[in-house]
Amino acid sequence: MSEKMEKRQTMYLRKKHIGPSCKIFFSHDPIKMVRAKGQYMFDETGRRYLDCINNVAHVGHCHPDVVRAGAEQMELLNTNSRFLHDNLVLYAQRLQATLPDRLSVCYFVNSGSEANDLALRLAWQYTGHKDIITLENAYHGHVSSLIDISPYKHHQLSDAERNQSVHVAPSPDVYRGKYRADHADTATAYANEVKDMIDRVHDKGGKIAAVMAESLQSCGGQVIPPVGYFQQVAEHVRKAGGVFIADEVQVGFGRVGTHFWAFQLQGEDFVPDIVTMGKPIGNGHPMSCVVTTVEVAQAFTSSGMEYFNTFGGNPVSCAIGLAVLDVIVKEDLQSNALRVGQYLSRLLEKQRSKHPLVGDVRGCGLFVGLELVRDRVKLTPATAEAQEVIYKLKEQQILLSADGPHRNVLKFKPPMCFTTEDADLVVEKIDHILTGTLSAALSRALLSRCERAGSHCLLLQSSSKL
Amino acid sequence: MSEKMEKRQTMYLRKKHIGPSCKIFFSHDPIKMVRAKGQYMFDETGRRYLDCINNVAHVGHCHPDVVRAGAEQMELLNTNSRFLHDNLVLYAQRLQATLPDRLSVCYFVNSGSEANDLALRLAWQYTGHKDIITLENAYHGHVSSLIDISPYKHHQLSDAERNQSVHVAPSPDVYRGKYRADHADTATAYANEVKDMIDRVHDKGGKIAAVMAESLQSCGGQVIPPVGYFQQVAEHVRKAGGVFIADEVQVGFGRVGTHFWAFQLQGEDFVPDIVTMGKPIGNGHPMSCVVTTVEVAQAFTSSGMEYFNTFGGNPVSCAIGLAVLDVIVKEDLQSNALRVGQYLSRLLEKQRSKHPLVGDVRGCGLFVGLELVRDRVKLTPATAEAQEVIYKLKEQQILLSADGPHRNVLKFKPPMCFTTEDADLVVEKIDHILTGTLSAALSRALLSRCERAGSHCLLLQSSSKL
Repeated sequence: MSEKMEKRQTMYLRKKHIGPSCKIFFSHDPIKMVRAKGQYMFDETGRRYLDCINNVAHVGHCHPDVVRAGAEQMELLNTNSRFLHDNLVLYAQRLQATLPDRLSVCYFVNSGSEANDLALRLAWQYTGHKDIITLENAYHGHVSSLIDISPYKHHQLSDAERNQSVHVAPSPDVYRGKYRADHADTATAYANEVKDMIDRVHDKGGKIAAVMAESLQSCGGQVIPPVGYFQQVAEHVRKAGGVFIADEVQVGFGRVGTHFWAFQLQGEDFVPDIVTMGKPIGNGHPMSCVVTTVEVAQAFTSSGMEYFNTFGGNPVSCAIGLAVLDVIVKEDLQSNALRVGQYLSRLLEKQRSKHPLVGDVRGCGLFVGLELVRDRVKLTPATAEAQEVIYKLKEQQILLSADGPHRNVLKFKPPMCFTTEDADLVVEKIDHILTGTLSAALSRALLSRCERAGSHCLLLQSSSKL
Repeated sequence: MSEKMEKRQTMYLRKKHIGPSCKIFFSHDPIKMVRAKGQYMFDETGRRYLDCINNVAHVGHCHPDVVRAGAEQMELLNTNSRFLHDNLVLYAQRLQATLPDRLSVCYFVNSGSEANDLALRLAWQYTGHKDIITLENAYHGHVSSLIDISPYKHHQLSDAERNQSVHVAPSPDVYRGKYRADHADTATAYANEVKDMIDRVHDKGGKIAAVMAESLQSCGGQVIPPVGYFQQVAEHVRKAGGVFIADEVQVGFGRVGTHFWAFQLQGEDFVPDIVTMGKPIGNGHPMSCVVTTVEVAQAFTSSGMEYFNTFGGNPVSCAIGLAVLDVIVKEDLQSNALRVGQYLSRLLEKQRSKHPLVGDVRGCGLFVGLELVRDRVKLTPATAEAQEVIYKLKEQQILLSADGPHRNVLKFKPPMCFTTEDADLVVEKIDHILTGTLSAALSRALLSRCERAGSHCLLLQSSSKL
């Protein structure tokens, strides 16, 4: 039996023994999941939820090929990479084949955080510099070095608490950012911000080790940087003796549909110096990877410091990683992401025509954001409304989340086996909720105006409760 | 078939695609492992090796109960801790039951490095202080914050490269350290070193956040701190407003035989503020944990920063963790560690009586060190001899390693199912090698003296080749 105690007992023990900083979805009425398959999850009563958010269960929850590969290798051997093993090298070779030739050397680690921290260490060692440029609203992980470069996390810190070697450039968000769609050349404008920042760092005697950027910001609000931006940023940072680190932890492995890696959306002429990958890499198994050039790898070695990671690149992780790559090919999931993603985006575009609350729809493949605003000119974030959508969807057994600096961007990043029928279902429900929410929100706005005007507005007040 | 290509092809691909900082055992002739069971590993030709070093395969390589628990849960559900799940809370409860009551709040992460980095974050947040005291030769992990506090790794860095908030106290090594067995009270002497260091930090305006110490140093040379040392250190650090972090990553889970946790060797009156665990926790599955007090956990939450770890505490990791705890109990592995460890230590003591090269034998349960020295008074490290022992053991299909700052300590930390027969075998082989090495070493020493004296010493020269 997959449920071992009553839900309230689970909640009691969680409260007692799990760090309260570890938040749960829908904290007032959390869901207890007991099994999952494909894009569906099931709670302890057998209720089925459509999962629109789990980019970790990349090829579908509990995919039998992945489970089998893991189980078979666990039975045979699971040890560290101080011994030769075929899985390690075959997996490295297979990953390399998905990347530009220059990116040929792998380091296997256990989480996106470990990967991003190692990427920083590689950059520091290769360049001999210390300063890092990160983007506004970026999220790169939870270890201490990454909190420093994750404004999504550290924005509440005081200046004194912030790392003085970290510099935050504007997010290349053409909807809400400093330069918007009406600007003639957003790519150059945002890249010049990085160039100016490099100059300011130099003026203060700093030296740039790296620019680190998610190929597409996810927690930052599903942001798609303008094409050509990374090329220009890379040029500026390399001229300053630094490297470009592309963080693919949330967005790699075919999710964007047209390409296997999201940085490739920028064009074939763009190649990062270091790429980090994680979440979907093992369909839930704790593993991740850093890939870099021979030059960076050699510089790291020349420090004389060995790099050893106890679990990284073990035969089980590599067997699972290989199985995930196999399933992506066998089930043509990258094409599915493109096809279903485009379908989903079209459906959401229709919602934008219909509901004033929908300010923007943006996405690539099965990485899609729907930004809710109370005013399409002022872009006032519709944060409470986004929360309401999420909660009402949950009541209807659909899992979606809201994120971005204002928590007003509905974030779609479902398992890659998501179908057009799933898209139909979630958008239909959103349509229904927005129809209700919108009228309620409008009612509240009108009501508020009435109240300021001293009138009673009884009719509107009661309609707002509908 | 578990071998997918010829060994030289594996080596070629490893050289091409795996970071050269990732070192392999026996690099001139590495071993390709294809399967393992209990305390044995098997290469691609079917040759069996006795594993005396793998403290990760804690309950034995590929233990069927652990494999089954992992496979069954992988089939059912593997997701993050934002949903309720019984495995998470049951596992936290079971771990808590092995610890003093005060240590009741768990954070599940993916590696010892993630655990130790989180421990630092907890300490910084709880105390509001920044300075960390670590011990000479300590190793706490590979992420950037931990390289800073791992003199084992960073001793080759220049002063300028070192983190100025990190302070290195003497290792409480009563064999080779500052205060030795002939000192009346080594515990107090070493603890006073920490006290003096705290005073010096205060003089410079610093504030101590934590002392972090492995309960027993492993990479540092299998060091057993004197009883009472941790209590006194904890008293000094708490008086300074800091906390005591016990790193059990390499030594926890019953290995020391008399206790489940190595910090308990110091006595029941000692309770750390934070304990980190890793390697053996999942028998090879990438997982780890930080356990702390309610007070520290609440302070961490009060920062307002959520802690989310994508893979940490997933249902598969917790199922595996529970299975490992079950096997330790079911097969009474802690008692086995005590019994076989004492037997092994006795055998090694006899080696010390027999071979002048054996300077010290120290250990608790199946955590044992054999320190080789060329001179028992000067303690000249017998580094080359230790390497020779390791290489010759490998030729005889026994896996052992040499570590410590001088790489002259033979390190025993085998799977906990190690038997007295295994101990007999490895010690017999060591005896045989030391007999050869010792005579060769003596020959070389005599030869060198002869050469200095200008004589020919033909007889010795030829005998040294034997």
